[in-house]
Amino acid sequence: MNRRQFVAGIAAASLAAPGQPNIEGARLRDHIERLSQYGRPAGGNFADGVSRVAYSDADVAGRAYVRGLMETAGLETRIDAAGNIFGRRPGREDSLPPVLFGSHIDSVPSGGNFDGDLGSLAAIEVVHSLADAGIATRRPLQVVVWQNEEGYAFNNGLAGSRAAAGHLDPGELDAVWNGMKKSEAIRKIGGNPDRIAEARIPKGAFASYLELHIEQGGTLERSGIDIGIVEGIVAIDRYDVEIRGFANHAGTTPMPERQDALVAASQLVIAVNDIVRAEPGRQVGTVGQLNVSPNAPNIVPGGVKLVIELRDLSAAKISALAGRIQARAREIAAQTRTTIEIRPAAHHDAALATPEIQRSIEASCDKLGFTHQRLPSGAGHDAQAMALLGPMGMIFVPSVGGISHSPKELTSWQDCARGAQVLLHTVLAQAG
Amino acid sequence: MNRRQFVAGIAAASLAAPGQPNIEGARLRDHIERLSQYGRPAGGNFADGVSRVAYSDADVAGRAYVRGLMETAGLETRIDAAGNIFGRRPGREDSLPPVLFGSHIDSVPSGGNFDGDLGSLAAIEVVHSLADAGIATRRPLQVVVWQNEEGYAFNNGLAGSRAAAGHLDPGELDAVWNGMKKSEAIRKIGGNPDRIAEARIPKGAFASYLELHIEQGGTLERSGIDIGIVEGIVAIDRYDVEIRGFANHAGTTPMPERQDALVAASQLVIAVNDIVRAEPGRQVGTVGQLNVSPNAPNIVPGGVKLVIELRDLSAAKISALAGRIQARAREIAAQTRTTIEIRPAAHHDAALATPEIQRSIEASCDKLGFTHQRLPSGAGHDAQAMALLGPMGMIFVPSVGGISHSPKELTSWQDCARGAQVLLHTVLAQAG
Repeated sequence: MNRRQFVAGIAAASLAAPGQPNIEGARLRDHIERLSQYGRPAGGNFADGVSRVAYSDADVAGRAYVRGLMETAGLETRIDAAGNIFGRRPGREDSLPPVLFGSHIDSVPSGGNFDGDLGSLAAIEVVHSLADAGIATRRPLQVVVWQNEEGYAFNNGLAGSRAAAGHLDPGELDAVWNGMKKSEAIRKIGGNPDRIAEARIPKGAFASYLELHIEQGGTLERSGIDIGIVEGIVAIDRYDVEIRGFANHAGTTPMPERQDALVAASQLVIAVNDIVRAEPGRQVGTVGQLNVSPNAPNIVPGGVKLVIELRDLSAAKISALAGRIQARAREIAAQTRTTIEIRPAAHHDAALATPEIQRSIEASCDKLGFTHQRLPSGAGHDAQAMALLGPMGMIFVPSVGGISHSPKELTSWQDCARGAQVLLHTVLAQAG
Repeated sequence: MNRRQFVAGIAAASLAAPGQPNIEGARLRDHIERLSQYGRPAGGNFADGVSRVAYSDADVAGRAYVRGLMETAGLETRIDAAGNIFGRRPGREDSLPPVLFGSHIDSVPSGGNFDGDLGSLAAIEVVHSLADAGIATRRPLQVVVWQNEEGYAFNNGLAGSRAAAGHLDPGELDAVWNGMKKSEAIRKIGGNPDRIAEARIPKGAFASYLELHIEQGGTLERSGIDIGIVEGIVAIDRYDVEIRGFANHAGTTPMPERQDALVAASQLVIAVNDIVRAEPGRQVGTVGQLNVSPNAPNIVPGGVKLVIELRDLSAAKISALAGRIQARAREIAAQTRTTIEIRPAAHHDAALATPEIQRSIEASCDKLGFTHQRLPSGAGHDAQAMALLGPMGMIFVPSVGGISHSPKELTSWQDCARGAQVLLHTVLAQAG
């Protein structure tokens, strides 16, 4: 028995205490396994992951399954104009703003069975456990399953939560993807694009927003910590970079005469890596996309296009890193006799978690005997749209190997149950 | 008047000397300009270059034009079984092995009007000038226009000269490109694939092979030298490189945990460049092709495939460079926690020019008052196939800016005429 198993033993014992609402880990697991069938590769099993891209037939079927679970848990469900599924449970003081909690169930192609699914089904399990224990909360509860968090469809994520926050992009409903207009896609999942403005949630309409999610990184697993308390969702800056050299014959162009755009790009990739690593902190910097032109073995590369992405909770730190990268790029361009143009392509603000909710999650962990640490979320979540409207908090559970967006994505059933337990206790603390 | 113009003035004066065969620069230019119309972009002019890919309708039409020029110059023409065009001029001792000279007229897509065309049309001009001056050589002369030197069609160059050298690849005639079988392509240009073995030229069947070509690099132009005397055509080694890291979420994977295949690839690109430049000599090393997987801005690259190409006259030097690159790749793999696999993908032997012919070209230059230097050919040429069969020599003229395989490819008309003049005098020296 290692330390975590020992802690888990204590936790399991505490879960069994009488008179307390209790997450049923087996029921949660059963629901996650059943949901995994919608979008599972033909002939595959749970370990083969899922392709439940938003607006696909698998998504529509999975949503129907989850809505049924919500009804079974006693929630009164509806689909808003944007296509998000809401389920309401009355409170003892039913006119108070509710506690809102949930996640999403759409996936990337060849994704895993925990990203979004855990937070959605754990939210339903919380309501189940309250119903089983006959507990009524002071505030009403609202469970939500957001549509198209991943944004693989239409290349534009957080689609449902952004609609609720009133942050749709201009013309977004007219976007076309795979021959389908976004307005049709929303209609396909039961929304009403003509009345999408009605999906907006006014500021202050909820008491707090909570979301349980897998970490998608390896920080918790590596340090053997049960629960992550999210400090915020990082800001993301993307820069489109275009490097222009001169394409020429690889056999006849002597080395000193070359203006090799790929040699320049390689120096820039290393510079991004070095500059981002050079100082302490959790900031990350990535060159994930790079295309060479003309990209033939016997031609000195004349051009390279690449994308630099920087993420951190602090916009000021991102800006400082970008400045250092820009300065280094100028040196590289001079040295390689190329031109390097760096254009800001996208900026997403950081969304900080409300300190009071971070403390509330922390108190739940302490009560349950779960180890915990604060950490930023490097990935985007629907919670960042909700942070625009009211208090927000997120709970992370460990991802085995830090793997996500892959059939190999895995969180132990024990960690799933722990996360749901923390969600339950935090909901109770917030709802009174 | 700069030094080159001064030298050119002397040369022009010497060209006019009575009793000597004389290259008519204006006629050569006229033929190059006329040939440029076959494959010229619609509505374009000479400066827009040419797309005369082998076996295209433009190639067929261009070949017919050039064969007509050969006949006009008094050559007796034939097309061999491989589709190469030969034109024979009898010698005073007509049973002696002939002097063989020529080049090709196919181009890459969006290529220039000098690569191949100059050598082919200058060869015909040499015969014209001999006819004009009423000169009969001791040996017979053979002008050749090789088919598909570039190898854009069927991705396999020197097609005609390799057939003549008996170096076709197994199954080469069954290769399919653009829906066309290679055997059909050869039939389209007048060859007979069923009898392709008859295209083989026995060793010793020619006294020497000569080819005039543009340099395609910038060495001659930069040093203000009129004529390049080719020491040989470099050996080419290609290596397929596969780098495997681990693809993961760019937001949630901390920098120290990454196994970024693109960071590793970037270090390797720089290593190739540094190692090749680290010692004196004309060796070149290129990473011209690089593909990232999955190549998305928000995913740490999990894999990179790239091609390393090394060229030098000395196979031993290439081998030593490859060893150093391999050793550095092992260090990079260890440091970046990736795997780097380097597989030899192709090897082309060097083809050394015959020293006696190099001296013969040199003597022609000296006689004509043209400055000259020896240099390797970094590009492949039909001459390398002919070097397998007998004595070989190549004459280079300057490429403006070192640009080739581009509509911007340019050699001054004066340099074209100079190259033809050197070819003429070397043919005379070789043919007696």
